Amino acid sequence: MAEASAKNGHPRARNGTSTDRSRIWGGIDLGGTKIEAVIVDARGEVLGRARHPTPVKGGPGEVVKELYGTLGEAAQTAGITPAKLAGVGVGAPGSVDANRGTLAHTGNVAGGWDAPYPLASDLGDLVGSKVVMGNDVQVAVAAEYKLGAGRNYRSVLGVWWGTGVGGGLVLNGVPWRGQGSAGEIGHMVVKPDGARCGCGRRGCLEAYAGRAAMELRARRAVKRGEKTILFKIMRDKKRTRLSSGVWAKALEEKDPLATRLVQRGVRMLGVTVASVINLLDVEAVVFGGGLGSRLGMPYVDRIADAMSPHLFMTGRRPAMHVAELGDLSGAIGAALLAGPQM
Amino acid sequence: MAEASAKNGHPRARNGTSTDRSRIWGGIDLGGTKIEAVIVDARGEVLGRARHPTPVKGGPGEVVKELYGTLGEAAQTAGITPAKLAGVGVGAPGSVDANRGTLAHTGNVAGGWDAPYPLASDLGDLVGSKVVMGNDVQVAVAAEYKLGAGRNYRSVLGVWWGTGVGGGLVLNGVPWRGQGSAGEIGHMVVKPDGARCGCGRRGCLEAYAGRAAMELRARRAVKRGEKTILFKIMRDKKRTRLSSGVWAKALEEKDPLATRLVQRGVRMLGVTVASVINLLDVEAVVFGGGLGSRLGMPYVDRIADAMSPHLFMTGRRPAMHVAELGDLSGAIGAALLAGPQM
Repeated sequence: MAEASAKNGHPRARNGTSTDRSRIWGGIDLGGTKIEAVIVDARGEVLGRARHPTPVKGGPGEVVKELYGTLGEAAQTAGITPAKLAGVGVGAPGSVDANRGTLAHTGNVAGGWDAPYPLASDLGDLVGSKVVMGNDVQVAVAAEYKLGAGRNYRSVLGVWWGTGVGGGLVLNGVPWRGQGSAGEIGHMVVKPDGARCGCGRRGCLEAYAGRAAMELRARRAVKRGEKTILFKIMRDKKRTRLSSGVWAKALEEKDPLATRLVQRGVRMLGVTVASVINLLDVEAVVFGGGLGSRLGMPYVDRIADAMSPHLFMTGRRPAMHVAELGDLSGAIGAALLAGPQM
Repeated sequence: MAEASAKNGHPRARNGTSTDRSRIWGGIDLGGTKIEAVIVDARGEVLGRARHPTPVKGGPGEVVKELYGTLGEAAQTAGITPAKLAGVGVGAPGSVDANRGTLAHTGNVAGGWDAPYPLASDLGDLVGSKVVMGNDVQVAVAAEYKLGAGRNYRSVLGVWWGTGVGGGLVLNGVPWRGQGSAGEIGHMVVKPDGARCGCGRRGCLEAYAGRAAMELRARRAVKRGEKTILFKIMRDKKRTRLSSGVWAKALEEKDPLATRLVQRGVRMLGVTVASVINLLDVEAVVFGGGLGSRLGMPYVDRIADAMSPHLFMTGRRPAMHVAELGDLSGAIGAALLAGPQM
């Protein structure tokens, strides 16, 4: 690698500065509403970042262009060009085929698509370096494991509490992906024959704790004549959806409907996480995602309380944390996927 | 090791016969009602076996004596003495501390005890070789993974369906024990605020599918005046409990109460196993234990049907198997714990 740099006319020491191509990586988090890109060094330090909205029209081609644009802007803030990157990682929702570098079923991405699209090779052609892909929540959990709230543990469950409820596992230092689709804690069954989930099934955790499911319930309650300040806050914040910030504000104001719905979500999260602990006995649980990060430790403590009656090993409970890398965990995790070995 | 054998006056080739001390191990499964011992060679082949009832009186000391007696008889059927063994493994219910070689909280063992007892060192003194310990279900699942129904997979969930519901995991070829207490699938919550479990908690899988819980329900139903042939079969078989054989017979005879209770257990097993698959995405599930082995594939198929509506990855379900090593999986797994590297 050092040799390659020398050939480019930029000889650098192996432990060189941020312009050494072999020592800088790009990471992109492709989200439903925004694309977040970072440039990191070998220690995972963020050297540059940028955020663009996810294109709502134009399909995969437009999304690839915007991924490249966001990465380019992040590179610029780091004082380099994308061509200097040793590799790029992309974290995405939907069905990621890491081996083929394709993305399919991106229902949560605006202007999404169903058939597998060769995102890695298309973006790789633009960037001029290797692009690898991973599941958005899994890479975020890996970032928290290596650099964030999970860094002091060998085995971590990550619970990404937002629009849906995603999960990621690191077991004895290694991300656990199963046959490629592990981590779907949001679709563990918390109540047989329970509420209808966005996935079409019944009784999933996400049908109780996901922000989308809670919004649906709130809208139904309003139709039934129940009072709430949730939608007033939404309009005040110029939102069209009940964002995490809207929920947080309504809880602060002790809105009874918001309190009841979040309490139910918290309880179901507690029951499900306790089940996972009884099965896997990991050392720590890290909560991220829009709601997890926004509601923070006071609500993680409530989840811990809801876990207590169900933990099989009495007198020992897992360490409970809020994600520390915030909005950047997905992008940093994607960059880690591309290169830095820590 | 070859040298040690030579010193004993029994020089053998390293890949020698069953009397080569370095190539034979003992395994003991300490159960609630019986002690099962085997002698195995380096390929896990069973060279000898014996079964004794678990002593109901005398506490840990008496249990250790009986473990040694059963092992001795198994050794005899293999044509050796316990002194020839390279090592001995013991699988036990309750709280096994593998590092300290102690066993505590053996509620399921007749004449059981609560405080940690140094079973490994006491038995080791009698046998004259190293004794290692493990959780009974975990070692049985490891045996199925290496030699039985799980041998064609890298990642396996074992569900031991009997008096209770135990679990064991092998992930990418390695038994997963978490911090020492992983695998408690029987105490995953299948219904919040659900039935009271034998463990004192509410809504555990075991409270629906465990044989003890089903017997409790059957007795209550009879008190309420419901008709069933379950207890007649029990008396005919000269049992005091509804054994797996009793349940199997009542199902054969289409007893409505037995059918209803087992159907409920099957459904809750399906829901819980589906949740585990959504979380871990392992390749295969192996069902053992008294009920799992006795009811066999027709009931494993019913569990698979109950899983279907909850599997997140449509079009792909884990391979479903019945344990192949039968009553010996625990003892063979315990022996594998002691030595043979396969």
